[in-house]
Amino acid sequence: MTDPRLAELSRLLPGLRLLAEPGDLEHYGRDWTRRWTPAPLAIALPTCADEVQAIVRWANARHVAIVPSGGRTGLSGGAVAACGELVLSLERMNRVLEFNPVDRTLTVQPGVTLHAVHEAARSHGLIYPVDFAARGSCSIGGTIATNAGGIRVIRYGNTREWVGGLKVVAGNGELLDLNRGLIKNSSGYDFRQLLIGSEGTLGIVVEATLKLTDPPPSSQVMLLALPDMEALMRVFALFRAQLTLQAFEFFTDHALRHVLAHGAQRAIDGDHPYYVVTEFDAADAGDQEAALAAFEHALEQGWVSDGVIAQSGAQAAALWRLREGITESLAPRRPYKNDVSVRISAVPAFLHDMQALLAHEYPQIEVVWFGHIGDGNLHINVLRPEGMAEEAFIAQCDHVTRLLAETLQRHGGSISAEHGIGLVKRAYLESTRSPAEIALMQGVRGVFDPNGILNPGKLFAAAGTPRAC
Amino acid sequence: MTDPRLAELSRLLPGLRLLAEPGDLEHYGRDWTRRWTPAPLAIALPTCADEVQAIVRWANARHVAIVPSGGRTGLSGGAVAACGELVLSLERMNRVLEFNPVDRTLTVQPGVTLHAVHEAARSHGLIYPVDFAARGSCSIGGTIATNAGGIRVIRYGNTREWVGGLKVVAGNGELLDLNRGLIKNSSGYDFRQLLIGSEGTLGIVVEATLKLTDPPPSSQVMLLALPDMEALMRVFALFRAQLTLQAFEFFTDHALRHVLAHGAQRAIDGDHPYYVVTEFDAADAGDQEAALAAFEHALEQGWVSDGVIAQSGAQAAALWRLREGITESLAPRRPYKNDVSVRISAVPAFLHDMQALLAHEYPQIEVVWFGHIGDGNLHINVLRPEGMAEEAFIAQCDHVTRLLAETLQRHGGSISAEHGIGLVKRAYLESTRSPAEIALMQGVRGVFDPNGILNPGKLFAAAGTPRAC
Repeated sequence: MTDPRLAELSRLLPGLRLLAEPGDLEHYGRDWTRRWTPAPLAIALPTCADEVQAIVRWANARHVAIVPSGGRTGLSGGAVAACGELVLSLERMNRVLEFNPVDRTLTVQPGVTLHAVHEAARSHGLIYPVDFAARGSCSIGGTIATNAGGIRVIRYGNTREWVGGLKVVAGNGELLDLNRGLIKNSSGYDFRQLLIGSEGTLGIVVEATLKLTDPPPSSQVMLLALPDMEALMRVFALFRAQLTLQAFEFFTDHALRHVLAHGAQRAIDGDHPYYVVTEFDAADAGDQEAALAAFEHALEQGWVSDGVIAQSGAQAAALWRLREGITESLAPRRPYKNDVSVRISAVPAFLHDMQALLAHEYPQIEVVWFGHIGDGNLHINVLRPEGMAEEAFIAQCDHVTRLLAETLQRHGGSISAEHGIGLVKRAYLESTRSPAEIALMQGVRGVFDPNGILNPGKLFAAAGTPRAC
Repeated sequence: MTDPRLAELSRLLPGLRLLAEPGDLEHYGRDWTRRWTPAPLAIALPTCADEVQAIVRWANARHVAIVPSGGRTGLSGGAVAACGELVLSLERMNRVLEFNPVDRTLTVQPGVTLHAVHEAARSHGLIYPVDFAARGSCSIGGTIATNAGGIRVIRYGNTREWVGGLKVVAGNGELLDLNRGLIKNSSGYDFRQLLIGSEGTLGIVVEATLKLTDPPPSSQVMLLALPDMEALMRVFALFRAQLTLQAFEFFTDHALRHVLAHGAQRAIDGDHPYYVVTEFDAADAGDQEAALAAFEHALEQGWVSDGVIAQSGAQAAALWRLREGITESLAPRRPYKNDVSVRISAVPAFLHDMQALLAHEYPQIEVVWFGHIGDGNLHINVLRPEGMAEEAFIAQCDHVTRLLAETLQRHGGSISAEHGIGLVKRAYLESTRSPAEIALMQGVRGVFDPNGILNPGKLFAAAGTPRAC
């Protein structure tokens, strides 16, 4: 702690854990992106909201940039500290504070993992329905900062709909207690909603009151093989009309190949270009008959080539692994990722243009894509060929991303469906948000964080703020 | 049109309808509150977003205050124009623009009534689930400006959850196309959510894309008579656990007396202090048995004294009228209204304090209250005694509202559950939002509306802005 600013912070908060060893700087300075070299000033690990507030006030006084840090599973560089920032890790604020059975809410600290929230809800006979593959590592604060979506959005919506109250330390150092779990509260601007998805640029979540709900009825999981893209939207429309869908996820044969090589078990024989994993309510025999009838209709129409319905929980998990294991199976290749969305009705036309673009721009490069078709959300993973230098690869991918952003703009889509903008996509923000909107965003940021100390350089370039890169 | 500013506006927009007759000024200058004397400058009735934008730009240049105006059914003075403002009525922008069957969205202009939205959704086999008694008169733009709640919040949430996209003319004159109906869009601050509930102080809604959903299964409507307040929360907990509730509304014998005098039919004999109207899913015999079992259990426990279950649609409507007719039955008395909320778990303790407060402060004054108990939302209607002067009556009610606000603050509640702050409650905003939050609200308002031309004086006093009263 030779930096005099850190010495001062230690004097202010004698109980605060501060780390500055090289290994710590590297560990806490990056997220699941690997594009930047971690270079934080130090790591602060507060244990309560008061300490967070004191750190933010100190940072304002000393013009030190802060990177709020959760599970660092983000894919857009939102938690990267590469420019001498203080990483403010919430990992020691990891307690479930209260379950309220009447309000059916769970109040938690921000460092609790999504998995721990699921477990706590389940122990009270309820569920917290936001879910995705990083559940064991991501922090609930991070899911709020990015308005995380995931695999159940089609049924339950995004994180935004499940946050009843937020305690936040704003960039100006004020502790805000937003909405306090009220169901109805029409008393001016809903800053709770503004903070959700703001990627740590307006405030730091220090406590969240999450809404819980009843578990869904028993469900069934089905894997479908499809002959072509046209079939995909037809099957989706059919299944949505006939069943109560909890998830409707698709992936390509490329994706399947990777996940099988990574240890998953093949569930349908033969070569098929597209697959769908779907989960739907199956409370009684009627629901199960409806599912079978929908499947048989799709088969007769030639929209599906084959299908499997899970006969046990283990088999359901095995089918899900085919979809959920994709990201992990690709991780060693450190793919370049796009995470895009359009309205569901725009999916066919967008897919047509997107496929043409990718085929043209990546002739020698493997592209794996999959996604949440029921939300209009596609994940594109571009794999660097062995002989290609990383810098050249990223330059080419950035070029294609710019073309992809133009395609999205034509189709009214978004360059970031659920990962956030962070560092990775800030150059493309104008494809999704107009200059007028971006100017208003910067204005609002200036209101909450007048000195620009919170996550500078994330979301948009931080002109005039300290320590932005 | 002797005012030179209006002459200029007419030259700028030759096709714009402008009204300035005394009858028009009175008609468009007030909402369902009757506390202020309407005194607008004139009424502008644009027919498209471009005209709205041109008016807002002109108003910025000439420092003319604008009051955005929908159905004017508001109860907080949010649409009152009493200080020479230009009323910008959206009533000519009243078309349903598009139904999208794949996205299941309805795109509408802001002047469409809630009832017309219901009808349009129904014609496509879907529903727009936000609903309340003013449905025939209120405009959809107004419901968005106040994040309207209503009688189905327990099942479907507030307006906030049903808006997929908003086109807005911001106070600075920019036309914003917010979120464009995307289900997943993590690309910076969600201004759509910020605008919802902002009471016309940040921007004017010129188009909305509403999410629709499947109609619920068949439902049943039940009226219950209850012996005391303790029973109310017990019956609610029981019914919520056993049934899928669509609505759970309660009212007092006082309220019943008014609605019966107004022409509704008595459905349960005898005197009972409290009543509940509840509607719940009854798709099959199992659901109906569960409802009967829950009712019988409540009867055995002494939590309900009597009950009726509707045997037909007409009877269901008659039971609903007992609850929905209350506001209308009181309207001729022009009651002083409070619209408050707490968390559901705080209802019993808050009700205890509230009843004591009202009994003490209004010894000679009739108070009628009812509400959405499943959302923690209570409506209090105070009736002016015949001999009492209006000014003295309002002064007394304002005094009690201040005490009520303190009570709410102790219980973590809100001074405005669903009506908005407007003019009526701005003096009490600090009981619900902290000074730090209010300062941030004013800062955000300054970003969207730097000249303070949109609805000045609403929500908070408009220091330094033109034409605030």
